Amino acid sequence: MSTREVLQLLDEKKLLTLKVRFTEMQPADIAALFSDIIDNNLAPHNSLIILYRILPKETAAESFTYMDSEIQEVLINAFTDKELQDVLDELYIDDTVDMIEEMPANVVSKILSHVDRSTRSQINDLLQYPKDSAGSIMTTEFVYFKVGSEVRECFERIRSVGIMKETVYTCYVTDCRRLVGVVTVLELLMADPETLVEDIADTNFISVNTSDDKESVAKTLSKYDLHAIPVCDNEKRIVGIVTFDDALDVLEEENTEDFAKMAAISPIEDSYFKTSVWRHAASRLPWLLFLMLSATLTGFVTNKFEVLTASVPVLISLMPMIMGTAGNSGSQSSTLIIRGMAVDEIHLKDFLKVLWKEIRVAVLCSVCLAVVNGLRIYFFEKDGLLITLAVSFSIIGVVILAKVVGSMLPMLAKRIKLDPAIMATPMISTILDTCSLLIYFTVATIILNNYL
Amino acid sequence: MSTREVLQLLDEKKLLTLKVRFTEMQPADIAALFSDIIDNNLAPHNSLIILYRILPKETAAESFTYMDSEIQEVLINAFTDKELQDVLDELYIDDTVDMIEEMPANVVSKILSHVDRSTRSQINDLLQYPKDSAGSIMTTEFVYFKVGSEVRECFERIRSVGIMKETVYTCYVTDCRRLVGVVTVLELLMADPETLVEDIADTNFISVNTSDDKESVAKTLSKYDLHAIPVCDNEKRIVGIVTFDDALDVLEEENTEDFAKMAAISPIEDSYFKTSVWRHAASRLPWLLFLMLSATLTGFVTNKFEVLTASVPVLISLMPMIMGTAGNSGSQSSTLIIRGMAVDEIHLKDFLKVLWKEIRVAVLCSVCLAVVNGLRIYFFEKDGLLITLAVSFSIIGVVILAKVVGSMLPMLAKRIKLDPAIMATPMISTILDTCSLLIYFTVATIILNNYL
Repeated sequence: MSTREVLQLLDEKKLLTLKVRFTEMQPADIAALFSDIIDNNLAPHNSLIILYRILPKETAAESFTYMDSEIQEVLINAFTDKELQDVLDELYIDDTVDMIEEMPANVVSKILSHVDRSTRSQINDLLQYPKDSAGSIMTTEFVYFKVGSEVRECFERIRSVGIMKETVYTCYVTDCRRLVGVVTVLELLMADPETLVEDIADTNFISVNTSDDKESVAKTLSKYDLHAIPVCDNEKRIVGIVTFDDALDVLEEENTEDFAKMAAISPIEDSYFKTSVWRHAASRLPWLLFLMLSATLTGFVTNKFEVLTASVPVLISLMPMIMGTAGNSGSQSSTLIIRGMAVDEIHLKDFLKVLWKEIRVAVLCSVCLAVVNGLRIYFFEKDGLLITLAVSFSIIGVVILAKVVGSMLPMLAKRIKLDPAIMATPMISTILDTCSLLIYFTVATIILNNYL
Repeated sequence: MSTREVLQLLDEKKLLTLKVRFTEMQPADIAALFSDIIDNNLAPHNSLIILYRILPKETAAESFTYMDSEIQEVLINAFTDKELQDVLDELYIDDTVDMIEEMPANVVSKILSHVDRSTRSQINDLLQYPKDSAGSIMTTEFVYFKVGSEVRECFERIRSVGIMKETVYTCYVTDCRRLVGVVTVLELLMADPETLVEDIADTNFISVNTSDDKESVAKTLSKYDLHAIPVCDNEKRIVGIVTFDDALDVLEEENTEDFAKMAAISPIEDSYFKTSVWRHAASRLPWLLFLMLSATLTGFVTNKFEVLTASVPVLISLMPMIMGTAGNSGSQSSTLIIRGMAVDEIHLKDFLKVLWKEIRVAVLCSVCLAVVNGLRIYFFEKDGLLITLAVSFSIIGVVILAKVVGSMLPMLAKRIKLDPAIMATPMISTILDTCSLLIYFTVATIILNNYL
């Protein structure tokens, strides 16, 4: 059902029809519909509350979990105690924590007054973990069995607590809260009911620490194809799990951040439309300023060769082509290397292999470019043999330099623990602009001075 | 255990120690170790086979599933019938198909001669689906129950076939092979054993078609936080499922492709090191050539204003700064918009909102840049008021143009069903180089002609 249809039915007060149509929709799609209304100001806020109250009972709370914090805030402010209770019962604890982090103080206290003491203390614990740590994205709602439990007892436990947990498909075996094994529901189903759970649990399992970086946790989960990964404290006690859907969100977020950094933008956490014009400008301006000011370096180069360009003005018209080719060649290499490192295909120890590969690729590419451009200049522009040679040799030098700088700088950045993505297009293009002009004018001076 | 330790133990023939140490390793890590050996030529191929035979029985086949096709080929060629059988029993059918697609004909026939008739026919079916379709990434190994089954019978079925299936946590309810519902193991566990499965199954489920694009399938799975998504044919019969780990791989692959395209590289399927120098050059050269030749447009502009630049040579030294600022401003906008569209945050219908937002951001950024640069030129370079004004007004014009072009071109590309990522940095930078010089020289001409 489209947003327009929904609003029309609402306008015509056909609430029963709406309710029936809503039962056919997925909670994630209902949430998207609410976003559409609020983002585009299609209806006043109290329409959202009316719509929410029309939702079928079993869908309402689940839809809420998919909504943006802006809508959640509007709804929570309007909720009766009962409605808030229903939503909090549906939310997993990690989602509640994510929500609390976005809400103003009065809404937070309304929420906290509706959760029981044990949940409140778990929420407080989760709020303590540093941003970007495994602790900050984990949920404390997992199923564990004590060593000595029979499979039969495990199923009883799943039946009694499972519905409240984020996943029951991977369960954990603990000994005095220390994690000693991992067991899947499938393994439990295949086992004899009297078997002890530790006899079928896998003791050679992967776990992470609460303080591990969330990106590396997400990558670990993806590498080993896990549904969920246990998170332990320093005493090896299991305190939570990270599930695949949260890991997927982390990976998408990191990719978005890398795209932004590589385009010289300080990453923004909110979506494009939710970010104000001021925030957008603030995230873009610092890099633009830095790059603009560093471009003055190229001014030094052109000034130094002013006599040359004044006497051979055709060299000026080819400047943008030389700089462009350098920039494009460099960003090809830097992007491949940065991405390769991000997905763990390229490691620092490989830098000689990378260098050698890039040099060979650069030679192949640059010779082709030099020949094609040489033919173009010589036959179409009729700029003469010397200019043609100067430009062709410059292209070869510039492309090789660009590929070497483009591939090595991100690796160097990683080596000295800087973010390689920052080193991509923006930084490298400034360096290459300056160096390529220097090569170009130097080569031109040598050739033209000697033979002109 | 590091690769060096493994090879040392192998050298010293301490095979028993090796075997014990291998039991502590994860299959994915063992596969990485094999890759390390073959990629860096650390040992001859027959060492790989010896190492493989030392692996604990339960780990060997699973490690195999994580290996690169290059190693798999070496191993399969050396396998006994028994070893090949063990591996094929461990592989899920979609993994077998992926492997077959990479192998030479003689290896393929060795593989096919070891699978039973029904598997062989499933493999052939899967090989028919077009690349990039849901059919090509799905597995046919899922658990389904016929309408009318009791929960008790469902568990019997899971126990008898579950171990062979890629996931049992989401099962499917069918009526004459038509998919009518989805049920999770948790729902089965919570239900009374005599309940009919259709009474607890969710009939409002998400499914995709075999011909759907694999990227959109992966996004759907991620959007609805699903473990697995059913794939149906045109008659709504379920023919397979796509699981979250395969979806995660697809999303990572698409991200890598987008990074490549935005850096003007034709995407390569293999990893950086597995791709030959020739393939690397071939994937980068076409764009470099195209961009180099299109840069001749900027030559027309500089030629047209040759008289101006000859009389005011300082304008030349500021060219790279103007072009650089335009390029950086444009790629900031294009990257944000392309990424926003890729993660479904920005839609085509939003183009007026995007345009209005970008114009306001551009005005803010450009005025700051113009002021800072103006002060620098006027006070440090002492280029005079008119030059300062010309450059400052140019920056404002150029940044606004860059943000408009950078944001609108990817949306236009999507509108006419081209890939927006292609329109990013490479294409836009060429357009902006030309337009920014045109603006710069025109503004300079107007100001300098009138007042000089």
